Amino acid sequence: MSGNTFGLLFTVTSFGESHGPGIGCVIDGCPPGLEITAEDIQQDLDRRKPGTSRHVTQRKEPDQVEILSGVFEGKTTGTPIALLIRNTDQRSQDYSKIMQTFRPGHADYSWWHKYGIRDYRGGGRSSARETAVRVAAGAVAKKWLAEKFGITIRGYMSQLGSVQIPFVSWDEVGNNPFFAPNAEIVPTLESYMDEIRAARDSIGARIDVVAEGVPVGWGEPVFDRLDADIAYAMMGINAVKGVEVGAGFASIAQKGSEHCDELTPTGFATNHAGGVLGGVSTGQDIRVSIAIKPTSSIPQDRNSIDLNGNAVMMQTTGRHDPCVGIRATPIAEAMLALVLIDHALRHRGQNADVKVTTPRIPGARR
Amino acid sequence: MSGNTFGLLFTVTSFGESHGPGIGCVIDGCPPGLEITAEDIQQDLDRRKPGTSRHVTQRKEPDQVEILSGVFEGKTTGTPIALLIRNTDQRSQDYSKIMQTFRPGHADYSWWHKYGIRDYRGGGRSSARETAVRVAAGAVAKKWLAEKFGITIRGYMSQLGSVQIPFVSWDEVGNNPFFAPNAEIVPTLESYMDEIRAARDSIGARIDVVAEGVPVGWGEPVFDRLDADIAYAMMGINAVKGVEVGAGFASIAQKGSEHCDELTPTGFATNHAGGVLGGVSTGQDIRVSIAIKPTSSIPQDRNSIDLNGNAVMMQTTGRHDPCVGIRATPIAEAMLALVLIDHALRHRGQNADVKVTTPRIPGARR
Amino acid sequence: MSGNTFGLLFTVTSFGESHGPGIGCVIDGCPPGLEITAEDIQQDLDRRKPGTSRHVTQRKEPDQVEILSGVFEGKTTGTPIALLIRNTDQRSQDYSKIMQTFRPGHADYSWWHKYGIRDYRGGGRSSARETAVRVAAGAVAKKWLAEKFGITIRGYMSQLGSVQIPFVSWDEVGNNPFFAPNAEIVPTLESYMDEIRAARDSIGARIDVVAEGVPVGWGEPVFDRLDADIAYAMMGINAVKGVEVGAGFASIAQKGSEHCDELTPTGFATNHAGGVLGGVSTGQDIRVSIAIKPTSSIPQDRNSIDLNGNAVMMQTTGRHDPCVGIRATPIAEAMLALVLIDHALRHRGQNADVKVTTPRIPGARR
Amino acid sequence: MSGNTFGLLFTVTSFGESHGPGIGCVIDGCPPGLEITAEDIQQDLDRRKPGTSRHVTQRKEPDQVEILSGVFEGKTTGTPIALLIRNTDQRSQDYSKIMQTFRPGHADYSWWHKYGIRDYRGGGRSSARETAVRVAAGAVAKKWLAEKFGITIRGYMSQLGSVQIPFVSWDEVGNNPFFAPNAEIVPTLESYMDEIRAARDSIGARIDVVAEGVPVGWGEPVFDRLDADIAYAMMGINAVKGVEVGAGFASIAQKGSEHCDELTPTGFATNHAGGVLGGVSTGQDIRVSIAIKPTSSIPQDRNSIDLNGNAVMMQTTGRHDPCVGIRATPIAEAMLALVLIDHALRHRGQNADVKVTTPRIPGARR
Repeated sequence: MSGNTFGLLFTVTSFGESHGPGIGCVIDGCPPGLEITAEDIQQDLDRRKPGTSRHVTQRKEPDQVEILSGVFEGKTTGTPIALLIRNTDQRSQDYSKIMQTFRPGHADYSWWHKYGIRDYRGGGRSSARETAVRVAAGAVAKKWLAEKFGITIRGYMSQLGSVQIPFVSWDEVGNNPFFAPNAEIVPTLESYMDEIRAARDSIGARIDVVAEGVPVGWGEPVFDRLDADIAYAMMGINAVKGVEVGAGFASIAQKGSEHCDELTPTGFATNHAGGVLGGVSTGQDIRVSIAIKPTSSIPQDRNSIDLNGNAVMMQTTGRHDPCVGIRATPIAEAMLALVLIDHALRHRGQNADVKVTTPRIPGARR
Repeated sequence: MSGNTFGLLFTVTSFGESHGPGIGCVIDGCPPGLEITAEDIQQDLDRRKPGTSRHVTQRKEPDQVEILSGVFEGKTTGTPIALLIRNTDQRSQDYSKIMQTFRPGHADYSWWHKYGIRDYRGGGRSSARETAVRVAAGAVAKKWLAEKFGITIRGYMSQLGSVQIPFVSWDEVGNNPFFAPNAEIVPTLESYMDEIRAARDSIGARIDVVAEGVPVGWGEPVFDRLDADIAYAMMGINAVKGVEVGAGFASIAQKGSEHCDELTPTGFATNHAGGVLGGVSTGQDIRVSIAIKPTSSIPQDRNSIDLNGNAVMMQTTGRHDPCVGIRATPIAEAMLALVLIDHALRHRGQNADVKVTTPRIPGARR
Repeated sequence: MSGNTFGLLFTVTSFGESHGPGIGCVIDGCPPGLEITAEDIQQDLDRRKPGTSRHVTQRKEPDQVEILSGVFEGKTTGTPIALLIRNTDQRSQDYSKIMQTFRPGHADYSWWHKYGIRDYRGGGRSSARETAVRVAAGAVAKKWLAEKFGITIRGYMSQLGSVQIPFVSWDEVGNNPFFAPNAEIVPTLESYMDEIRAARDSIGARIDVVAEGVPVGWGEPVFDRLDADIAYAMMGINAVKGVEVGAGFASIAQKGSEHCDELTPTGFATNHAGGVLGGVSTGQDIRVSIAIKPTSSIPQDRNSIDLNGNAVMMQTTGRHDPCVGIRATPIAEAMLALVLIDHALRHRGQNADVKVTTPRIPGARR
Repeated sequence: MSGNTFGLLFTVTSFGESHGPGIGCVIDGCPPGLEITAEDIQQDLDRRKPGTSRHVTQRKEPDQVEILSGVFEGKTTGTPIALLIRNTDQRSQDYSKIMQTFRPGHADYSWWHKYGIRDYRGGGRSSARETAVRVAAGAVAKKWLAEKFGITIRGYMSQLGSVQIPFVSWDEVGNNPFFAPNAEIVPTLESYMDEIRAARDSIGARIDVVAEGVPVGWGEPVFDRLDADIAYAMMGINAVKGVEVGAGFASIAQKGSEHCDELTPTGFATNHAGGVLGGVSTGQDIRVSIAIKPTSSIPQDRNSIDLNGNAVMMQTTGRHDPCVGIRATPIAEAMLALVLIDHALRHRGQNADVKVTTPRIPGARR
């Protein structure tokens, strides 16, 4: 495949350009009998949508999803679920000037050489707008995981530029535009972002995602490890430059006596592993952290070249997020959900007969 | 598939357990006409093999590879290349005591619940011994990439525990058992490891891998991005807990004006992207960094449980690497090679007709 | 995947139900730069659409296709091409009575046990209406194959029930509703069908498909043989019960001295192989023949059971084709095109460097 | 993949050439806990092996299989099962003269143009010897299907050249070298074959395969239909030119009132469908029939060309089966088993939660 399908058993095939007729996807492999409505999906789309605060792009995209197939009388039928989001707030003229040049930090140059043709309007297929589709598909996956296994998948911003955001409570995450789990720090974040915007610049962020309630035994042992598939899913989100599971890069300086999580009859003592050992879930929380680079589109003069290879100076105007990380939390949650549902189905297929009498022990949260 | 096949067009299907008859793989999709011998493959295997210094496991595994198919009169024929490495230095009795318990930090507990059966000898399939197979397959990929495109893939250790290893020269990497690109720091690394071993403990490491000479245009844009596939490949190596491409986690605190690599007619000004934009190679060096956790097998008393869920105290004896990162460099190189050759073939299939007159600009090294 | 994606490199992911909002597909992997319009696709859709003669279903489905993505300024961009056909002429009330029963010869019983839920309206996902999507995707594949390689893919009806239809000329195929390559036999076919309809019965058909201009060397040698993929594609068309390549079942009674096609410097002497040897195209015409069963929906009393397993007597009314084979020719052409384009791309990826000085000899037509 | 892996969840990756070191495969996705020994596999290999009567090739290949991995203490562990069969009775010198020419009816010409290189010894990878691997893998699948679901998969020869072989009893199939289900006809078959051999010619055959005990609900509805996957599996066997499911090509002349199988509370009335409706198993016997072409290697003068395109006259000597169909029955059984186990696992993954109260009715045998 040419890289627009995600998953093996629960597959999401994405399509659409930023300024074409619309974006959408086909979900194949969703088990039958799941109650799902457009409203269920819309909820997560609304968490990601632009225009909700001054810290994000001011585009107005209602991102209304239509279910084209696969749902009958409110339930999935086991056949493909096609979702369509028509594009509305398009200002294609904003982009005509970039037709002849390559925006630095964007896909323009590499895609041009790959395909020899591009829909330059708003980045076309390379626009982060495509991630709305992943959020929509992830909403279906999340609902199934919650109903069948009681799994909760939640994310939050843990760092904005140089500002660390200590975790206080999940309850705060929905109360601010940053997905920060900490009410006190919100004013700091707001003024930090105001400065960035005033400087006509952009900034990176770190997002943490946690899946609680994942049973022991999901994941494949060698190549399709649960953590490898998570890394693939996360690094595939626009602007992500790094992925950690559990202790992540901190494990470099850890000793074995510190890192390796002891087991006791009442549970794991720690969770440095982040819920995955040998590629397979342990029953602990799955803990993932991702690094998101600063937005490449900034209204400053930048050196670039044009289609003929000549030097140009360009600014990327248009309406852009000064920190793409701000709207990334629902996307990261969605991708984790897509990985988990796929492995749930794979595990059920292969290991349906396995009987183990060893007790399953609970996990440490951290 | 059940997670033992890597790749879409250049596939590697791995098999084998640490203490069974042998390990090996089937490479499918290698283009015909490549000159390859067992010796070519053996070279990389020897770089990874145990027992070469006091800092690694003292097992003696000659790891002699046999080519079972796919090569005729010294050249690949386009048919599957099967490789077999017979196991030799097995001391299965070392492991009989862990038959009833779960080694902390290992796959034992999660795999047991997944499969309900396990070859506990030496970790069986979960043993890092399986990575020899990846090195062997990677050697084939490397050779093709070098011959067809002049691509060089090299790695080095950039951090051992808390010790940073400044890059000095590629020439030093082969001169010390750590794959350190820096002769002066080797004594420090040696005494650091001696202390770790004396303390009956283990430590993590960071490995950097670089691919030079990759043309612009490889990678798929949405899900099978080159960087996503790299993250998948790297996180799938035993003990890896984090992956970065380019600036990685440092990009969180970078501003857009700093991170985003400007283009000039004579080349990219910087390489914070690590050679990938929009999922597609830019022609710059591909730069990847991975975090490897400390070895879980340490000869210290650790809490665990047995098959009945009862508390036990256990030590993992046997012959283990005090830092699995020391032998990880050839593995990381191999995985990067496997990702690149797969995308090379994918790109050729889809975009063989693309003609672009825009000049290709060289990349900044860092 | 759950069986709604076709192909490896040129993939078609189909969605939609007969009486839902619409049907469609996502084509991924179409090379960039192909000129394509909705009209190009519409032409083939119109060849398949119902209501064009008294011998087919009288439903009126305009089957207007909309291109949602992947085409920019009239050319493919290498990104997914999403196609949508909205459903219009739906009479869902026709089907309410079959909600509680299983139509004999249909997917009703097997799907019910598989999924435990079904969109019974018009067969839902099991409706042959889904094949419109394949025709649309096939139109894109056909165009690319024609432009890049000069390949022509054409089909015709070679048998209707017990009536053999001798091949006379391709020119006649488009002049009658049966896709018969023979003008003289059309009155016979018409009266034959009139009798079938008058008897409230249905009948089977044989369709032949031929691809001319396929280069030598396409196809994989062991499992993904060109002929195996063709068999898969054809047997996957609704109502197909048999597939032949070349001499097909006639080869059972052939001797080796008769069947095996001799080679001469001026070409193959015969084409019993049907254009494939060892799974790989020979450069001869690809010749395929398929058997299509009689329509299961007939307005006669038939024994069946209801959802509780009780005996019922039922007639399948509604507007049905008395011979589904009549509209099957464009579908079979489309499926052959999808197989060929996929193998074209696979071949280009793996064997781009192959140089052979041996001349390519032309093929015998029969 | 390059066509050497079969299946999605239960995958078989085949390797090896006729005259190389050996042939074998890696089975990935076999559920854990299945008792399997080399002897279990050997039994089916022995049914296929050459040299067992005067009607087949006189090569002596013991075809001893070695299990390299994936089985521990007599049970599968859920990890890859690698099987290796070393080649022994090789007379490579027999083939040196065909190095410069293309055997008519063989893969020689098409593969040469595909790859530009070939292991010409015994056909190399294109040799039917590769099918031993499929038989070995199929033996594992058969055992699992039998133990978990009570499924029986058996085949027989139903036609040899122009001689129809009426089915009398399964008990006879193992009593003669033809796999004929009919003791009385064996002398006729023997003298028929003696004549063919005396005429230095070869002949085709028809093989029927039946799977009994397959539950309702296996198969995917649109592209990966059970019958489509069967067609793919069967047409992928060397020398197969046609595949039928159920009534097959006879359904062309059938009326709907005859073909379509009525349902009654005590079972299906007939089985023209061959056990598959809408791509999904019905619970009736799966019935498949395949056409096998006459062996292309015959000791008669045949026209061909050499590597330079010049006319040559050649005989294919060596030790060849005068009817490859004679040894094909175990291969066809194996391929059907591989299709069924894959769909069993897929079905379990997706539809594990489905509850249906409708009774399952038994199937008609014919």
